[in-house]
Amino acid sequence: MADKSNTMWGGRFAAGPDAIMEAINASIGFDQRMARQDIEGSRAHAAMLAATGIITDSDAEAIREGLLTVLSEIESGTFEFSTALEDIHMNVESRLKDLIGEPAGRLHTARSRNDQVATDFKLWVRDQIDAAIDGIEALMKAFLKQAEEGASWVMPGFTHLQTAQPVTWGHHMMAYVEMLGRDLSRFKDARVRMNESPLGGAALAGTSFPIDRHMTAEALGFDRPTANSLDSTADRDFALEYLSAASICAMHLSRFAEELVIWSSAQFRFVVLSDRFSTGSSIMPQKKNPDAAELIRAKIGRILGATVSLFTVMKGLPLTYSKDMQEDKEQVFDAADSLMLSLAAMEGMVSDLTANIPALEASAGSGFSTATDLADWLVRELNMPFRDAHHVTGTLVALAESKGCDLPDLTLEDMQNVAAGITQGVFDVLGVHNSVNSRQSYGGTAPDQVRARISDWKERLK
Amino acid sequence: MADKSNTMWGGRFAAGPDAIMEAINASIGFDQRMARQDIEGSRAHAAMLAATGIITDSDAEAIREGLLTVLSEIESGTFEFSTALEDIHMNVESRLKDLIGEPAGRLHTARSRNDQVATDFKLWVRDQIDAAIDGIEALMKAFLKQAEEGASWVMPGFTHLQTAQPVTWGHHMMAYVEMLGRDLSRFKDARVRMNESPLGGAALAGTSFPIDRHMTAEALGFDRPTANSLDSTADRDFALEYLSAASICAMHLSRFAEELVIWSSAQFRFVVLSDRFSTGSSIMPQKKNPDAAELIRAKIGRILGATVSLFTVMKGLPLTYSKDMQEDKEQVFDAADSLMLSLAAMEGMVSDLTANIPALEASAGSGFSTATDLADWLVRELNMPFRDAHHVTGTLVALAESKGCDLPDLTLEDMQNVAAGITQGVFDVLGVHNSVNSRQSYGGTAPDQVRARISDWKERLK
Amino acid sequence: MADKSNTMWGGRFAAGPDAIMEAINASIGFDQRMARQDIEGSRAHAAMLAATGIITDSDAEAIREGLLTVLSEIESGTFEFSTALEDIHMNVESRLKDLIGEPAGRLHTARSRNDQVATDFKLWVRDQIDAAIDGIEALMKAFLKQAEEGASWVMPGFTHLQTAQPVTWGHHMMAYVEMLGRDLSRFKDARVRMNESPLGGAALAGTSFPIDRHMTAEALGFDRPTANSLDSTADRDFALEYLSAASICAMHLSRFAEELVIWSSAQFRFVVLSDRFSTGSSIMPQKKNPDAAELIRAKIGRILGATVSLFTVMKGLPLTYSKDMQEDKEQVFDAADSLMLSLAAMEGMVSDLTANIPALEASAGSGFSTATDLADWLVRELNMPFRDAHHVTGTLVALAESKGCDLPDLTLEDMQNVAAGITQGVFDVLGVHNSVNSRQSYGGTAPDQVRARISDWKERLK
Amino acid sequence: MADKSNTMWGGRFAAGPDAIMEAINASIGFDQRMARQDIEGSRAHAAMLAATGIITDSDAEAIREGLLTVLSEIESGTFEFSTALEDIHMNVESRLKDLIGEPAGRLHTARSRNDQVATDFKLWVRDQIDAAIDGIEALMKAFLKQAEEGASWVMPGFTHLQTAQPVTWGHHMMAYVEMLGRDLSRFKDARVRMNESPLGGAALAGTSFPIDRHMTAEALGFDRPTANSLDSTADRDFALEYLSAASICAMHLSRFAEELVIWSSAQFRFVVLSDRFSTGSSIMPQKKNPDAAELIRAKIGRILGATVSLFTVMKGLPLTYSKDMQEDKEQVFDAADSLMLSLAAMEGMVSDLTANIPALEASAGSGFSTATDLADWLVRELNMPFRDAHHVTGTLVALAESKGCDLPDLTLEDMQNVAAGITQGVFDVLGVHNSVNSRQSYGGTAPDQVRARISDWKERLK
Repeated sequence: MADKSNTMWGGRFAAGPDAIMEAINASIGFDQRMARQDIEGSRAHAAMLAATGIITDSDAEAIREGLLTVLSEIESGTFEFSTALEDIHMNVESRLKDLIGEPAGRLHTARSRNDQVATDFKLWVRDQIDAAIDGIEALMKAFLKQAEEGASWVMPGFTHLQTAQPVTWGHHMMAYVEMLGRDLSRFKDARVRMNESPLGGAALAGTSFPIDRHMTAEALGFDRPTANSLDSTADRDFALEYLSAASICAMHLSRFAEELVIWSSAQFRFVVLSDRFSTGSSIMPQKKNPDAAELIRAKIGRILGATVSLFTVMKGLPLTYSKDMQEDKEQVFDAADSLMLSLAAMEGMVSDLTANIPALEASAGSGFSTATDLADWLVRELNMPFRDAHHVTGTLVALAESKGCDLPDLTLEDMQNVAAGITQGVFDVLGVHNSVNSRQSYGGTAPDQVRARISDWKERLK
Repeated sequence: MADKSNTMWGGRFAAGPDAIMEAINASIGFDQRMARQDIEGSRAHAAMLAATGIITDSDAEAIREGLLTVLSEIESGTFEFSTALEDIHMNVESRLKDLIGEPAGRLHTARSRNDQVATDFKLWVRDQIDAAIDGIEALMKAFLKQAEEGASWVMPGFTHLQTAQPVTWGHHMMAYVEMLGRDLSRFKDARVRMNESPLGGAALAGTSFPIDRHMTAEALGFDRPTANSLDSTADRDFALEYLSAASICAMHLSRFAEELVIWSSAQFRFVVLSDRFSTGSSIMPQKKNPDAAELIRAKIGRILGATVSLFTVMKGLPLTYSKDMQEDKEQVFDAADSLMLSLAAMEGMVSDLTANIPALEASAGSGFSTATDLADWLVRELNMPFRDAHHVTGTLVALAESKGCDLPDLTLEDMQNVAAGITQGVFDVLGVHNSVNSRQSYGGTAPDQVRARISDWKERLK
Repeated sequence: MADKSNTMWGGRFAAGPDAIMEAINASIGFDQRMARQDIEGSRAHAAMLAATGIITDSDAEAIREGLLTVLSEIESGTFEFSTALEDIHMNVESRLKDLIGEPAGRLHTARSRNDQVATDFKLWVRDQIDAAIDGIEALMKAFLKQAEEGASWVMPGFTHLQTAQPVTWGHHMMAYVEMLGRDLSRFKDARVRMNESPLGGAALAGTSFPIDRHMTAEALGFDRPTANSLDSTADRDFALEYLSAASICAMHLSRFAEELVIWSSAQFRFVVLSDRFSTGSSIMPQKKNPDAAELIRAKIGRILGATVSLFTVMKGLPLTYSKDMQEDKEQVFDAADSLMLSLAAMEGMVSDLTANIPALEASAGSGFSTATDLADWLVRELNMPFRDAHHVTGTLVALAESKGCDLPDLTLEDMQNVAAGITQGVFDVLGVHNSVNSRQSYGGTAPDQVRARISDWKERLK
Repeated sequence: MADKSNTMWGGRFAAGPDAIMEAINASIGFDQRMARQDIEGSRAHAAMLAATGIITDSDAEAIREGLLTVLSEIESGTFEFSTALEDIHMNVESRLKDLIGEPAGRLHTARSRNDQVATDFKLWVRDQIDAAIDGIEALMKAFLKQAEEGASWVMPGFTHLQTAQPVTWGHHMMAYVEMLGRDLSRFKDARVRMNESPLGGAALAGTSFPIDRHMTAEALGFDRPTANSLDSTADRDFALEYLSAASICAMHLSRFAEELVIWSSAQFRFVVLSDRFSTGSSIMPQKKNPDAAELIRAKIGRILGATVSLFTVMKGLPLTYSKDMQEDKEQVFDAADSLMLSLAAMEGMVSDLTANIPALEASAGSGFSTATDLADWLVRELNMPFRDAHHVTGTLVALAESKGCDLPDLTLEDMQNVAAGITQGVFDVLGVHNSVNSRQSYGGTAPDQVRARISDWKERLK
């Protein structure tokens, strides 16, 4: 029943050493997720064994057909996994033997479980990289859509969660597009680097059979075979690099998740989350808990934990394969599920997100948020040294504060009393819309700039 | 099928936002492991509601009986968990309603899911602490048995994996008893600290019902109720402390696991592992892979990763409950399984371990391992300053090396040529048995000392 | 100059292998922080050597006096540390030899650097535990003072950063007192567990000199000597446990730090931070960056990182001492500085914190935050089943919302139209003050409860 | 003095809140390491301000010259850093003002400390990437040299630290060349990805000054300016990616370090480490502690800890700059020092390493390590199914074991008694040299293969 701790582990495993060993040693409970990859790898291997004359064409054909049958049994859920057979490789091979008899025994020629599992796992991770790339692109498109719609909506730009300067909604959304763009590029680089086939590394030393590793590499979509058979079986860099890239991506998501939580508070009210990604209260109609955002915020913990796990496992392992390395898969599986789920949920939330435009604008203008615009105007137009401009601005802000008004509400006379040279032109930079429009530097928050960047990215994601 | 990544997550969840939200939000997939704790908590709550007059005795009785039925359904595997009902609490309550009707609706009076889940999880973690305590004691007893048998067997004592001085097998085993003794004490302290009942904290503010939190606390084996309702729902210290203690314990296990891997190499041959915890090769009879030891060595990675996960999740969460905290359970579940499995497998391996006594002794005596005994003798008996004694010893070792013999093989004359005052008595400290017998300082490696410490621990573990 | 990377590390160390080895091997750059502990340990050792007749009283006296001189040189900053002498032990001993000559050579009798460094580091960590205990108590007192002052101020109680129910300021402050109270207890337990003296463990096997380990243990404030000499030199549990406890404490601080950052935003305005712990803008008078709070929020990262470092270092190390363990100190030093600085800064901030009472109260009452009070009243007074009570409450909230008023503004008639049994008494539970006053369950938010808990803690911290 | 904990932190900072705030807030204690980068960035900025007409040419010239003076003061060690001036930016600017007066005040036009520090830190990290690339290449060359020399020396190939098959020394060395080759490629990718200039992002929104961000980007060696000003100041991906790549590289080094520790044990004696990277015992001449190897093995802990730190710090930070991010630098500085020191020390050790060729060969041939060669021969030459071949081999190994000989010592008759078809040709694959020579598959251990891979890498590293 649910409480494994009491029935299974109490004091000592009731069932004795064999049950303990099976529990700690068998991997079929999780590595069945690599069934498709295992079968793909074996089919490629069989074809190569025939092409190089190591086995006969008919044996190869029987093996390849039999493996397709096994795959369809697994995919349809009729396959019975056996813990006694330990892992996915043995489960598949054993079933193959049932199906095709003697030729099954020739499949394992010129390979070992060491290069086989490395191949399977690499293929699995590569699939996940592809999935992550798709998921990231989809999320980028959701952000781009938000950015496009709100390219000119103003909102507060924060440092230290304090309003610093007005920015545009589109600009804020595009910040995440940049982050995700780096994630995309990071996963793509990782894919290129890991795309070498370990198959044929055999147990650890290579083999004396006249195999053609380039052929299996090509069949499995690898760019080339790995160049060192010891490294082929001892390497888990591809998993660590996947986890590292996933951690950075999850960190990005945690930042927007945090913003969504804060923005949907009663005090901020910057956004309204879709009901689909939040939960309500049966008796408090305004309460809408940002559950999905909170869960996404938490996922970085989970993915980072998986990363730490695998680094710790790999630390100080002598070459080549050690059983410790069996602890690689569950970490990556869990991290990959967490990442893909986070990307999907975030895409949904971003797509469904409703900005509270008036609240954003009201907040953007509070707190003398255009004071730096005034100071910059003084520097630019009156050639005032930077530090003097700051002094003048401080005085004017204090004046506005004492009058209970904002900067644009001061009269020109008020201003000239503080700095005689100020002209009517100053009012062009005060006010939040003027402010954001003026930030025309490359990558700045001006709507034109934002639209240009949106256009760049749409082109790149086509 | 196995490859979730392709069918479920491809690009975007095929099934749309609702499926995504359910996938990220529902916890029933894992929190069903707390079913027994959930039902225990509810039964205690119902009894208290009746005792304080908040509900009737007959309602309470119906609830308590109904919950027992639910529990037996779960334990027998006939209960159908529903993902739509999200979590274990709702699954249990919904089934209770089926069974007893209207009174089921009164169970949730004066509590909320926030204090309920905190209670369930605390009870679960407390059970794990108890299991860990049992598992550690069992392993300590296995080490004590090895220590007792080999209290006087000599083996090399290593620093930097270089032989430094001879020690006894029993002494080495007892080093792990000390480590595990601290683990035991650490888990016990954690148990005392966490043993306060959050039940009655309600959503976060406490309740206006006249509940008796001391009564439910006592019924659930807690020492007292928690003293602050906000903290009751926001606290996950107990899980973090469990994980930290588990990490330290797993670190200890990783050290002995590493020793087993090295000791069972063909080059060391210090021990023979039982076939039950290793795997062989069908064609290489001497090859015995220390699989269980390697897997235990790896588990520290997994448990440390879980620890990092939960710390990262909890970082910077405002009070009180945030949905992020739902990520607490799977980490603890996985770490607890890993710890208990490691303890059980290690206990099995230690119990089955066969020391290669001649190989240990031969190794212990090589490399002039008693040179420090000689130097200490010179200081002690001839009152030579420490640094001079080292110089004399170095000269004698060089002499033995040039003669191709070991220190005890030098003649008294050889020795007196280097330091005239040396007497026949020096030979009493050379030789590995003499060496270990002489280390009589408290906690030293002399067999008498080792036996005294074994006796202390056997008394404490009675 | 500053850029070490270019001058020192470029391509290959210019100065060759010896410089590289010195750079990676020498610890004097950091272990000089243990100078006082090293000298204390040596003084206790010398006294014991004399008491047991291993060295003469006059040698011991010369050593003990000489060490005091060394200490005063170090404390006054006149001591010249030498990297060639590698570590603090050799630096001190070498200087002692300069000062007192030959007897200095007898100090190292019956000990080794392995037990010496373990002793020094344990003493250092123990001092840090004491400092942490003091720092935590001081911070608890600051929270208690805030709690006392605002025991009855109302504020929103949050779940998911959404207002759930009104609570009191004092109650919120007391939640942190509970967390810190557990930290206190955790450090105290760690201190008891680690308080065993490794001195006399010698290199790893104990010694043949007739030393008295109980005497040195007592002199250094330890409860007893360690019971196994291998463990004495191989153990770093005390550092890991310190780091784990520090991580949990830092996590608590990160939560309040996050609250301070959010609460001091322009949108919340719940608190005003003291100028002493924030920085302003010369031109934006309302902008006050919560720098100290943000830095404290970040420190959990640093301390957790140190924890991960040391766990990873210790993973899989065979007994006894390995040089890897030299990486223990900088991690603990850095974590300890971070923790103490965070505690001190947080104490300052809490002491200086000004709550914005009207803003807190206004926020507490918004969002129908007393809806659960209404529902509970219906259950309690009208014996309505919980789920029905929720339905009635939902209807009334919808009514209030449509009228643009809050729950207490509805008439009794309004209410009776929905549920006939409602009486005038219902108004006693609506309104935020009524709400908080009603939460009288043990540990609840009612001011009386809060004051009782304050009183408990003041008694315990006396 | 050394014990900061007692004098500085005791109870409460003696010096009061201001000292605490300065201690937690000021970064000049560490960010002075970025002085050169800060000055480079400012010089580029000043040149651009003049080129775009924002300041005069003469002001720019004064600024640029003054900054060179400041740099030379810092590099010569005469610069006095002030904690009151908080950070490197203010220290430099303040000194510039002393030197050139009023124009210094114009330098900060159209930028802020937010984009300035991002620029400085990026330049620093980029320098470290370049240094890592150099360090890795140097280490690869050291491994290549070892591989070349020992391309045909045989040694045991291990799985689970058990001898599996004979391999060549050169092949083992080349496994590390592959790992380091991936490290190289990973750092190079990271460099390309991060090489965008944040300068001109200003506080967070960009600027209204007509700056030319492409000009400063080019002057600082960046490929282009960043495309979003919010992201420019909020991004620390480059540091996280550096740390992740450094962690993977350090993990590789930890594996060879572990091998060196094991290989230099008295039981293995596979290698002799140079005295320059180990320490000896004055009285035990054969004891040579592999200190440098152990310290390198530990460095992965330190670098991984830094990685965890920064991920934890960045988790959940709202845009844009938060003070938490000030905790980025010390982590990266420490990790970079650790990585560079490890690479340098490892390069030294590999260069100085002496293989014990006879010990390696003896070990390679023990344990029937060519049993798989025999089985493969049966499959290949007799077309025996894989599983049958294993059975025959097992029988022959058992026969050899019972005769106390190794496989090549069996007679042809012995063999034919077990499998009639065996011919004289079988002896060509028995024996360790035959075995390794036969592993001709691409990336296999045959000396020819190894030499071909050495040649490939030498070409690539030219």
